[in-house]
Amino acid sequence: LFYWPGIQGRGEFVRLALEDAGAAYVEVGRLPEAVGGGAAGIMQYMTIGSGPKPFAPPYLEHGGLFIGQTANILAYIGPRLDLVPADEPSRITAMQHALTVADLVTEVHDTHHPVASRLHYEDQKPEALKRAAAFIKDRMPKYLGYFERTLVEAGGETMLGGPTSYVDLEMFQVVEGLRYAFPRAMKRIEKTTPRLLALHGRVAKRPRLESYLASDRRLPFNEDGIFRHYPELDV
Amino acid sequence: LFYWPGIQGRGEFVRLALEDAGAAYVEVGRLPEAVGGGAAGIMQYMTIGSGPKPFAPPYLEHGGLFIGQTANILAYIGPRLDLVPADEPSRITAMQHALTVADLVTEVHDTHHPVASRLHYEDQKPEALKRAAAFIKDRMPKYLGYFERTLVEAGGETMLGGPTSYVDLEMFQVVEGLRYAFPRAMKRIEKTTPRLLALHGRVAKRPRLESYLASDRRLPFNEDGIFRHYPELDV
Repeated sequence: LFYWPGIQGRGEFVRLALEDAGAAYVEVGRLPEAVGGGAAGIMQYMTIGSGPKPFAPPYLEHGGLFIGQTANILAYIGPRLDLVPADEPSRITAMQHALTVADLVTEVHDTHHPVASRLHYEDQKPEALKRAAAFIKDRMPKYLGYFERTLVEAGGETMLGGPTSYVDLEMFQVVEGLRYAFPRAMKRIEKTTPRLLALHGRVAKRPRLESYLASDRRLPFNEDGIFRHYPELDV
Repeated sequence: LFYWPGIQGRGEFVRLALEDAGAAYVEVGRLPEAVGGGAAGIMQYMTIGSGPKPFAPPYLEHGGLFIGQTANILAYIGPRLDLVPADEPSRITAMQHALTVADLVTEVHDTHHPVASRLHYEDQKPEALKRAAAFIKDRMPKYLGYFERTLVEAGGETMLGGPTSYVDLEMFQVVEGLRYAFPRAMKRIEKTTPRLLALHGRVAKRPRLESYLASDRRLPFNEDGIFRHYPELDV
């Protein structure tokens, strides 16, 4: 797995799946730079060798195949880790949900970077205040309400209505991330999503994930990642 | 196919694949409202019936299966329309590129809607000027340069290095859209992407697409869609 070494970010959705399945994997970004790790190492891998390169981390190398884009990685490892049912409709629905999560994640990112990724938050704060207010008022309830309804219509236990899938692990991370970034808004909005919160609680107690979350492999949220806590944005 | 009836938008990537393959399909949004069409019709389909609902258009119904998210629809119809090779690495790479296009499309949308989708462009114009400037300076050359390099490394003819795929059709639409939205910036940047332009030209001349593009099924670009031309943003 190739991802920035200091943040949860988009890579965390992949880490959660690998950890939940007990898969053997190497986080190249967390290896020493001397052996090709670190941020320099993951950047280097994006430019060398033959074959299609990813546009950005995270990406995964498995058996010589490089796979970019978070939802694409999950679609690839899901069946191999028994984290999505084998039938095509389930896989399509799982991918659809993963892409909706990806859209949400991009919108969360843009609450603190509404003008440009290359600028610091402090250089786009007036715009961030406006964008975050709109996100909290309209988008956050819309996404969470959609996930809650989807879960209820699937029977209330899992997002696909069958065994736990990578989509359920994503729901855990969405709740965690929004609670970290927007605790005041989330406290109000999550009252309307009881089944999603119950799912979040069940995922957190899955034995391998519980170990992972308590380990130092689980990086803390911070203000370099995607879910950032700036109190002034949590209106 | 369920998509807004008045715009190209994200639905156009699906239309291009269906049209290129000569597939039989119905655009529900362009049917009269009296028979369940129009914007009202596509919204209605998102709330009725059983099974997973999409978060937003476009979505496709095929054989009772509802499929949301543009890249997910392309991954589903690609093999069925012979618009992606059958091997897994090709499909994964195609999906990776489609998701990178989706990211670009979202960034294009946010050049005119950097604060909130629900507000009019006129109500977020100062922020749009800043975001569009950053997009043109950094992001547009980065995306187009990436696609150009990918194409060159794949042999220079198609994005996957084999027969024409839905990714090539997407490249056509990316060039078309950026030329419409940012003609001045694009005139400068496209000098650095000759292979991408040549691919654009080849796709435009594919017989079924050429007919489609000349027909009234091809909606014109306009300022309700994703690629919008506001001269003040084309710095």
